[in-house]
Amino acid sequence: MNPTLQSLRESNDPGLKHARSLDNEDPLSDIRKKFDLPSELIYLDGNSLGAMPSNVPQRMQDAVLEGWRTGLIRSWNARDWHILPLTLGDRLAPLMGAAPGEVLVVDSTSINLFKLLCAALRLRPDRRSIVSEGDNFPSDLHIVQGALDHFYPEHQLLLGGADDDSIVDLITEDTAVVTLTHISYRSGLIRDMQRITEKAHACGALVLFDLSHSLGAVPVDLHAADVDFAVGCTYKYLNAGPGGPAYLFIADRHLTNADNPLTGWQGHADPFSFDTRYKPADTIDKFRCGTPGILSYIALEESLDLFKTVDLLVVRQKSQRLTDYFIELVESMCNEHGLVLASPRDSSRRGSQVCFTHAQGWPMMQALIGHGVIGDFRAPDILRFGFAPLYLRYEDVWIAVAMLAELLEKDIWKDPVYAQPKLVT
Amino acid sequence: MNPTLQSLRESNDPGLKHARSLDNEDPLSDIRKKFDLPSELIYLDGNSLGAMPSNVPQRMQDAVLEGWRTGLIRSWNARDWHILPLTLGDRLAPLMGAAPGEVLVVDSTSINLFKLLCAALRLRPDRRSIVSEGDNFPSDLHIVQGALDHFYPEHQLLLGGADDDSIVDLITEDTAVVTLTHISYRSGLIRDMQRITEKAHACGALVLFDLSHSLGAVPVDLHAADVDFAVGCTYKYLNAGPGGPAYLFIADRHLTNADNPLTGWQGHADPFSFDTRYKPADTIDKFRCGTPGILSYIALEESLDLFKTVDLLVVRQKSQRLTDYFIELVESMCNEHGLVLASPRDSSRRGSQVCFTHAQGWPMMQALIGHGVIGDFRAPDILRFGFAPLYLRYEDVWIAVAMLAELLEKDIWKDPVYAQPKLVT
Repeated sequence: MNPTLQSLRESNDPGLKHARSLDNEDPLSDIRKKFDLPSELIYLDGNSLGAMPSNVPQRMQDAVLEGWRTGLIRSWNARDWHILPLTLGDRLAPLMGAAPGEVLVVDSTSINLFKLLCAALRLRPDRRSIVSEGDNFPSDLHIVQGALDHFYPEHQLLLGGADDDSIVDLITEDTAVVTLTHISYRSGLIRDMQRITEKAHACGALVLFDLSHSLGAVPVDLHAADVDFAVGCTYKYLNAGPGGPAYLFIADRHLTNADNPLTGWQGHADPFSFDTRYKPADTIDKFRCGTPGILSYIALEESLDLFKTVDLLVVRQKSQRLTDYFIELVESMCNEHGLVLASPRDSSRRGSQVCFTHAQGWPMMQALIGHGVIGDFRAPDILRFGFAPLYLRYEDVWIAVAMLAELLEKDIWKDPVYAQPKLVT
Repeated sequence: MNPTLQSLRESNDPGLKHARSLDNEDPLSDIRKKFDLPSELIYLDGNSLGAMPSNVPQRMQDAVLEGWRTGLIRSWNARDWHILPLTLGDRLAPLMGAAPGEVLVVDSTSINLFKLLCAALRLRPDRRSIVSEGDNFPSDLHIVQGALDHFYPEHQLLLGGADDDSIVDLITEDTAVVTLTHISYRSGLIRDMQRITEKAHACGALVLFDLSHSLGAVPVDLHAADVDFAVGCTYKYLNAGPGGPAYLFIADRHLTNADNPLTGWQGHADPFSFDTRYKPADTIDKFRCGTPGILSYIALEESLDLFKTVDLLVVRQKSQRLTDYFIELVESMCNEHGLVLASPRDSSRRGSQVCFTHAQGWPMMQALIGHGVIGDFRAPDILRFGFAPLYLRYEDVWIAVAMLAELLEKDIWKDPVYAQPKLVT
């Protein structure tokens, strides 16, 4: 008989009992109730699209019915929609160790990266190199490649490896900007933000971090590390819904001199003067461009209400425990099947995800998904599991691994139905 | 006693009876029932933020509950979220005389303008001038100014006037691109798209039109005029909600050679291969950048379902009649108060809006809004009224003008409560 989540939940295995005892001691167990989670699955992909906070449907109906339907154009002021990019930025700032006025919620991560990359290059006009990592998230590299191809033909992109040493070694007096993802989307490795920033600043270069896989799961302190610029998305651990708006951070010391190349009207000092000559706002508002898609902002408001109630250090502690526990269980329960840990074993260097590699990773992950455990696959051979500490239980972790063990043990993953290649997000 | 919408609706004025007889003959009267309009106001601002189609709340709940909550990451494929920019583009294409594969729904109008401006300049590398209009929508000019300032220091922006002659006269063998708004946000004047495009092409230049004030109210035929590029927003006459996603059009003949400078992963030929080297899609998908904000796309789906049921020529005919009727009523019922028509009198040259100027336009518009008739004000002296043909009645037009006449007649607009300057959208 094929295993089901239900059969595993009813198991008498002492491992499951132990997992439940860990849940009973979890200081975050109450916050899980604020999320609406489908009972028919275990969701280990909150690092791709976070789960929905329970109040979102109500909040969305209010925005649609009271905001759009009844308020119509008046809601841009009456409901402060117009300043949402700034007010939500101020509320997001504490999660990254930033101050009010340094964070703006706007556009997509890729577009924000373009804006800040160009701003950084303009601040270092005599330098010609940009340092990044060969295994950076593809979009982050693509944005740099496109900017160089279109606008900076004399600049070059230098790519280091996964280890911080290889990055630090590339930083020289010719480096204009170092742009890296804080936590690798592939391995979950955490960069030493402080060390890299120190080396960059020592050489007169600027740093630009992508925090997409950090915020909401791993505490970040941009001020402590003296970071210049940052970007990130809100739809992973920040639970702002599919394609929720991205954010950008600009250290206060750069606000006066950093220039946005995408000079849309919302970045104007006074957009509603309808001045045809662009005059940038003297605040971070100057990094706005077009009209914000309000309906995509609503869920983030709800999510930030939830984050206000939790201690990020407690979140981080649970994240480390969940991922340690997962690794321990996989290595003990699936030890004959050749899964190789591809994330740092040291939890202090690991984000809230765990990756294993296996040549048959694709069908294994498809079988797992087919049996109600949602993780994801990253080419060519990575099984990636995300652990959103706000709503994931130790019980979920145990059941997920027990399911994986059964699928491997019984060769269920070899069923041709799981072999079919198709688009994954 | 101050006038109210209710008292005017109960009026025995023969003008109101006539208006109602016009509504009885309106072939679009059924489509109004598909919108949820607040009864306590008359909405003449559908050209800023279109009214809400009645099915939007249900559709949004479905997207949130079934799509996000239950489907989670799987919905990107299962609900075809991932290809919404393309599928909605294909559905939008007929409204602008474009073919499937030529339109993409993505980002904001300003960002799309930046992408296409840079693409056009790259297609005309030896030319140094860009032609636009001094009274273009500010954001459109700002984007050009920012692009020149940051990336094209040797290019110049030449600005013509409201008349097409002044534009045509500026186009020379040095013109790379002519970028104009099809219908002026201020006066509602319709540009002669065909004439301008012919002159541009005769000189070897490209054209880029902003259709924000056109689509959904005025039929546009980009193929007939041989237009190269276009952009626009969906939150005006297309009723896609506050900050709904924008669109861009690229004529099929340019798809191979036009390059997007904002090379985000969603524009990659195969985003989920996680290839770190950017390889653009060979379709219009290459003008995508980051992850689309799905919740802002939902209302557009509903709105396009409505547009599928109407004949755009009938929509245009009603738009012309509504605006003619409004002008006729204002000039007859408010003729002693110095309002000056600032839109073309010839309805064939006018979009679906009417502007009057008056030195005291601000308090007049505030008084009107305070009495339930929503129009808007554009600095320095423009009272702007939009007429969304899908949901506006002749009765609404009559009552709006009757209200304006009473506010002027009784000097109600001079009440200090309406004098306060504040932010308008």
